[in-house]
Amino acid sequence: MATHRFDPNFTDNVINAMGPKTNPRFQKLMASLIRHVHDFARENELTVDEWMAGVKLLNWAGQMSDDKRNEGQLVCDVIGLESLVDEITFKLAEEAADAPTATAILGPFFRADTPYRNNGANIVKGVTDGEIVFMHGRVIDYQTKKPLVGATVEVWQASTNGLYEQQDPNQEEFNLRGKFRTDADGRYYFYCLRPTPYPVPNDGPAGKLLELMDRHPFRPAHIHILATHEGYKPLTTQIFDRQDKYLTNDSVFAVKDSLIVDFVPRKDDPQAGLELEYDVKLVAAPQ
Amino acid sequence: MATHRFDPNFTDNVINAMGPKTNPRFQKLMASLIRHVHDFARENELTVDEWMAGVKLLNWAGQMSDDKRNEGQLVCDVIGLESLVDEITFKLAEEAADAPTATAILGPFFRADTPYRNNGANIVKGVTDGEIVFMHGRVIDYQTKKPLVGATVEVWQASTNGLYEQQDPNQEEFNLRGKFRTDADGRYYFYCLRPTPYPVPNDGPAGKLLELMDRHPFRPAHIHILATHEGYKPLTTQIFDRQDKYLTNDSVFAVKDSLIVDFVPRKDDPQAGLELEYDVKLVAAPQ
Repeated sequence: MATHRFDPNFTDNVINAMGPKTNPRFQKLMASLIRHVHDFARENELTVDEWMAGVKLLNWAGQMSDDKRNEGQLVCDVIGLESLVDEITFKLAEEAADAPTATAILGPFFRADTPYRNNGANIVKGVTDGEIVFMHGRVIDYQTKKPLVGATVEVWQASTNGLYEQQDPNQEEFNLRGKFRTDADGRYYFYCLRPTPYPVPNDGPAGKLLELMDRHPFRPAHIHILATHEGYKPLTTQIFDRQDKYLTNDSVFAVKDSLIVDFVPRKDDPQAGLELEYDVKLVAAPQ
Repeated sequence: MATHRFDPNFTDNVINAMGPKTNPRFQKLMASLIRHVHDFARENELTVDEWMAGVKLLNWAGQMSDDKRNEGQLVCDVIGLESLVDEITFKLAEEAADAPTATAILGPFFRADTPYRNNGANIVKGVTDGEIVFMHGRVIDYQTKKPLVGATVEVWQASTNGLYEQQDPNQEEFNLRGKFRTDADGRYYFYCLRPTPYPVPNDGPAGKLLELMDRHPFRPAHIHILATHEGYKPLTTQIFDRQDKYLTNDSVFAVKDSLIVDFVPRKDDPQAGLELEYDVKLVAAPQ
């Protein structure tokens, strides 16, 4: 820890104020958080005015948040925290088994009530300026490589205007999202959009932070995937278009090399000019 | 920095995403904040669920905050952050001059529109279970020791039920607060309550944190003071009753030894059984 000229006992006093009934994990987290926050303040000689500007920004995040929007989450995302805790959680899971498909952040646009659709369905409605992709693949057991029958693959993506359906009154309910069940060969398949880059909402404190940090708000084009199967760990991930110009500077730092995919030309399909094959590898849950 | 098994470049990547137009002080603060937050997550192997619990708590703080309540500030207060940045700001001021009266946090109950009252006024209305104090003293220049004529001493305090007037519909407007101007001898004097301890509001996230940390919400009895005079640095402080049982475990860590005072018996005053003499020492502002 850096030396400093402030009360050397202050931080220990705050930490030691915690009582004996504190949950041990919570005690550890709060002690560490208090130490880091205090070190941050001392190392930078944070002033009352600077601290209060931070308080106002965090209060603003809460005031903007509701059932449809989690601005506190987005503030964390733009400083990489959601991707980091995702990496940590994934690493712990990986060490418990072998490496399955890499995870990526859930993000704020997941909907728990997305309906099942039949394989072969087209999840794109009312989009005239996008490229249609035939996406298909299998869900397999990471260790045995066996296909998993009846697994669920849920996908969601933004439209070409950068908006998910719940952000956009001009899109129909559940547009560009759907759940699919793998068939007897463990296969899923459907038509979707080639994803396009879009900015995270930047009308709140996360946008203000990005502006102050002289950063752009764009996310590289991606498709969200949540794959589940009984007896397996649920997998949350995103796959990214290798051609995207924001691949190396995602505003929420979610890109991993193993999640970059190639959209290839598809012939003889009147419904789609592109194709994407993507297998999802799930890890058996501990019994 | 602790060694760890996560992507060694991740934090630098997030910090280096800041662009060249970032304000230098903001760049320094964000780089340090990002490093501390990431180290906190890695050192504790913070999980997605634990992180999301923190996001919800911070959003809740913003949702509870309005013109009359700043819950984000209170969350900072219970982990000692407001007192720490106060110490830092005070230390920097002290080094710029000599040691004046120590500062303490403003707290969330200050009102900018408090009226002036005449010296000798009683700021206590409608309180039947308290002890009345004749509080008096001088405002002086810290270096020359000369009294300052026409300086403003503003005070505010909670009632015996633990509530400031803006929290309590049963107290009249501006009860237990007032501004006083020093007379030709630099003196101020008025009647107030001997302060009593009270809990910080604990119906929100700050209260939840206190409960989870197995801590009480009480603040030791205190009187808030804001002293100002043209050509001098404004002073925000609190003075604490030496008899209070919470003196060594203030829930917001604001007590300093030099701010502890003694209420002594007062004779022959039908209006007050106690007396407090307190001189306020101001530092000349740089020209």
